[in-house]
Amino acid sequence: MAKRPKNLLVAQSGGPTAVINSSLVGVIDEARNWPEIGLVIGAERGIKGVLEEKLLDLYRESPATLQALRWTPSAALSTSRHKLQPGDLERIVDVFERYNIGYFCYIGGNDSMDTANRLGELAQAQGYGLQVMGIPKTVDNDLVETDHCPGYGSAARFVAATLRDAGLDTEAGAASTPVKFIEIMGRHAGWLAAATALAREGRPDAAPQLIYVPERPVTLATILSDVERVVKRLGYAVVAVSEGIRDPEGNFLAASESVDAFGHQQLGGVSVYLADQVTHVLGLKARFEKPDTMQRACTALISPVDAEEAYQVGRAAVRALREGYTAQMVNLIREPGPVYRVHTGLVPLEKVANRERLLPPEFMASPEEGATEAFLAYARPLIGPPLPIHARLERYPLARAYP
Amino acid sequence: MAKRPKNLLVAQSGGPTAVINSSLVGVIDEARNWPEIGLVIGAERGIKGVLEEKLLDLYRESPATLQALRWTPSAALSTSRHKLQPGDLERIVDVFERYNIGYFCYIGGNDSMDTANRLGELAQAQGYGLQVMGIPKTVDNDLVETDHCPGYGSAARFVAATLRDAGLDTEAGAASTPVKFIEIMGRHAGWLAAATALAREGRPDAAPQLIYVPERPVTLATILSDVERVVKRLGYAVVAVSEGIRDPEGNFLAASESVDAFGHQQLGGVSVYLADQVTHVLGLKARFEKPDTMQRACTALISPVDAEEAYQVGRAAVRALREGYTAQMVNLIREPGPVYRVHTGLVPLEKVANRERLLPPEFMASPEEGATEAFLAYARPLIGPPLPIHARLERYPLARAYP
Repeated sequence: MAKRPKNLLVAQSGGPTAVINSSLVGVIDEARNWPEIGLVIGAERGIKGVLEEKLLDLYRESPATLQALRWTPSAALSTSRHKLQPGDLERIVDVFERYNIGYFCYIGGNDSMDTANRLGELAQAQGYGLQVMGIPKTVDNDLVETDHCPGYGSAARFVAATLRDAGLDTEAGAASTPVKFIEIMGRHAGWLAAATALAREGRPDAAPQLIYVPERPVTLATILSDVERVVKRLGYAVVAVSEGIRDPEGNFLAASESVDAFGHQQLGGVSVYLADQVTHVLGLKARFEKPDTMQRACTALISPVDAEEAYQVGRAAVRALREGYTAQMVNLIREPGPVYRVHTGLVPLEKVANRERLLPPEFMASPEEGATEAFLAYARPLIGPPLPIHARLERYPLARAYP
Repeated sequence: MAKRPKNLLVAQSGGPTAVINSSLVGVIDEARNWPEIGLVIGAERGIKGVLEEKLLDLYRESPATLQALRWTPSAALSTSRHKLQPGDLERIVDVFERYNIGYFCYIGGNDSMDTANRLGELAQAQGYGLQVMGIPKTVDNDLVETDHCPGYGSAARFVAATLRDAGLDTEAGAASTPVKFIEIMGRHAGWLAAATALAREGRPDAAPQLIYVPERPVTLATILSDVERVVKRLGYAVVAVSEGIRDPEGNFLAASESVDAFGHQQLGGVSVYLADQVTHVLGLKARFEKPDTMQRACTALISPVDAEEAYQVGRAAVRALREGYTAQMVNLIREPGPVYRVHTGLVPLEKVANRERLLPPEFMASPEEGATEAFLAYARPLIGPPLPIHARLERYPLARAYP
């Protein structure tokens, strides 16, 4: 009698992205090709669903559902931010044994890579034949050992498009409200804020006129004088600001002042705070925009490049498991040359777990430059087709002495 | 010798929209058909550009620019919120005479309709042959005497798409952050907030689970208990809230508490305030999203229906001027029957000026219903093609005793 095939368990972890479901479908589609894989089982809410045995039979989903899921943002299995408790890993291995799980795919960020890695180590120590594979996803783009992370391209497309639109709107209404802050995701890393520089492609003076990232400490006073200078020059300023910008002492800018009636620090976030400061200190009317989770969930601005790559890393994870690999993360390797091309590879989980990649010096520029040409060349292909072309009037003045 | 043709002056006023430029191009394109119209002159920053004689020759713009402008959000001529000062109207008539302006098209909301009307009256009183025509635009959809306003359909498409995406994201992450507030434009009227109900088409339980509009007074306590009830039922709640919601005494909800270190009321707005209250009073983690001007300027979510209608009202304004009409606003009249069809008409400016249309009772529902079926039937055709279909897993549970 043939050996009973082992099942594959897949889960999604951390913040959703616009394309994390595409990776899930990649796993399911590829697993169907291999008779040595039994069922594909989905755990609801990440590792929590394993602990609670909330498990789904994903092979029963219809082809139509799976096809549409490739273009559906957010995490179809739901996610959690469950912190591992003592005994959790042992309990997970126990559940895995009972459900005959031989393969585990964890779609997530650097925390998840750590969980997957520890799980693989424990199973090995117990002599239980579990292969684990990490599938990268994060709009923060902060995983090491990969050219970029699935999820980032779509978020980058969203923020670039948003800044471009906001630039048009702010310029048109500059007579009444000349300053606008847009708060971009990123507590530690400025990858997403830097991507707003793509909004300026072809028009260097366009929005955002200033970009602040967590990697470059900055004071409120500097931001105020930067804004004032830009408004003096152009008549308006649109500012992209990472939620995690800090002063030179390492304190978050937004948390440093104003406490409400309950003694809570900070209502809103850094964009609320900065708009308020510009209004009251500089006397310039300022608005703020906080797209929040729209950055990771906007259907209309999914990057097709990103969606396809997310699908491919899912497929590659299953192929690697079948080839016997374990304790690896699938990564994206960019091929050299002028044409954008990537292929997938593998990197040991222990090299990725709990590490974070900040913007390297060659990508960082002054707030006014926002990002270097090298960064733009890096990020440009990830967002998919160029953003739509907007028209501007040539503005032919009528002679004063007309007619 | 033939009579020298009079020139047409066009200006854009108030907040930009995604399609206000489409109306501008409609004016230019139609004017070219009529030899009795000389130049088409654009005033920069609305009526301010007339006062300062910042005037542009729009016939010199290239066909490519004008074509692309039909799909470019924001106001290409720039706008202002200039309040008329004593003597302004007289000065404007003077400028008009010097530039041989016989026709004036003002693209704007109800303030602008008032300005256009007063200008027409003054010119008439002075025996100066000026014809004025109002072209409606506002994302607030609050002009009277028209089925709807150009600009609203695109904003409605944006907010509906955004709430649908936010619903997916919040549901997936409900284990960590179950509540989300999204702040929708509308100081007085709830048209745009009500349009978020279109996000639920085909799935009544989907986001937004609660919608608050300025027309229905509400207290903080009611909102908190509504949110608590929805979270108990579904595990999460996504709430669309008009920026202008008020308590039964008529006070804005957001402005009623918390004063910062400078003594300024209110940082942020109602969504910041409500997210803070839910977190600290209910103990449920809450986020807020403030799309702000994205609602009126998102290129990716322009409604093609809206863009076309905006273009047609621009053209209709010029045709009406040529037929000798003055002191009218072009309106949109919906034809009866199951198929959506509109045509343009005319309504005297004095009937529109300074009046505002709130949500009528037949469109208003409880916060949980959000909007009536009659409203959905009204708003559905305005947003263009249906929103993209999202997939949901059917969620086939694996037997506990597997295998």
